[in-house]
Amino acid sequence: MSQRVTVPAREGAGVRVQAGQSFRVIDVEGRQCADLFAFCAADVGEYASAEHTRPHVNRLFPQVGEHFVTNRRRPILYFAADRSPGFHDMLVAACDPTRYVALGVQGWHASCQENLLAAMRRLGHDRVEVPQPINLFTNIPLVDGRLEWRAALTRPGDSVTLRAELDCLVVVSSCPNDVLAINDQHISPLAIDLLD
Amino acid sequence: MSQRVTVPAREGAGVRVQAGQSFRVIDVEGRQCADLFAFCAADVGEYASAEHTRPHVNRLFPQVGEHFVTNRRRPILYFAADRSPGFHDMLVAACDPTRYVALGVQGWHASCQENLLAAMRRLGHDRVEVPQPINLFTNIPLVDGRLEWRAALTRPGDSVTLRAELDCLVVVSSCPNDVLAINDQHISPLAIDLLD
Repeated sequence: MSQRVTVPAREGAGVRVQAGQSFRVIDVEGRQCADLFAFCAADVGEYASAEHTRPHVNRLFPQVGEHFVTNRRRPILYFAADRSPGFHDMLVAACDPTRYVALGVQGWHASCQENLLAAMRRLGHDRVEVPQPINLFTNIPLVDGRLEWRAALTRPGDSVTLRAELDCLVVVSSCPNDVLAINDQHISPLAIDLLD
Repeated sequence: MSQRVTVPAREGAGVRVQAGQSFRVIDVEGRQCADLFAFCAADVGEYASAEHTRPHVNRLFPQVGEHFVTNRRRPILYFAADRSPGFHDMLVAACDPTRYVALGVQGWHASCQENLLAAMRRLGHDRVEVPQPINLFTNIPLVDGRLEWRAALTRPGDSVTLRAELDCLVVVSSCPNDVLAINDQHISPLAIDLLD
């Protein structure tokens, strides 16, 4: 049995995960980027950190069987399984209001940064640092030294399974970017399945 | 005329730079990695951010003529000139005490994180976030998807020139890493020349 947390399209959702518990992030309809954040429950100043994870694995993104580590270099998430085409990003910041202004959007636009902050508020944390996200299903390859913002290649039901190594607060945002190609202009829901 | 700030080997130094002012970071003896940080003087919660700079320039590191931007996506440093072999890094976190424990060092070891925090304390800021540094002269290329920790290729007197676009606090750390190859096991001083 598992417990499902739904992440509505363009929104975020957070959940507490115990050390040792696994969870699956599911791209329900496909082609949807999932910005994932993980904070230590005991101290939200410690969180999954891209810049510490890269030198830990000596890659731009861990492989299955490797760890994501925190800004204190402690393993926080174990990459247990990847049932997706395997394109993920850890180079690009969460989208935020200033990003959409720069992209020419008029007025308010949902963003992964606001989704993160709202989800953390609902979990009782009014103020957190906004870390570099783990951008699951996000297809922004480096091609000849340039980042190319390509549509996600995930199919409905594709997923990534992670295991928490510390008690943590996990937030997933359905990236609302409908300006660039990354969500193939079809913003859709995600799900977090907490596994037994 | 210019004002020189010396960065002793294994230590850090900070300086206030006015918007519009240029400065040069100099590798005095060569083969020395320089961890550079820039915080907005008006609010040190805003700082030069690798994860916002990458999507701004769509590269892993800006080219001469491009900007480094803050975590609020405002240009903070303009990359004016590069008198070095041109190998710089923006993927790898500042070294810190936990890094040296993992590398097998017994007891205390100087680190860029401690150097940053000490320099910011001297500038009147007791508590700052530790951003991903701009690792000048640092030669950690991606080779077939793997980060390779290679010796810096700078010669004595090589430099990078930057212009502040906002009033900022700039900190440079002489990376004390004598465990890996990156400083060619020869930790040496750096200098910051504030230009008129």
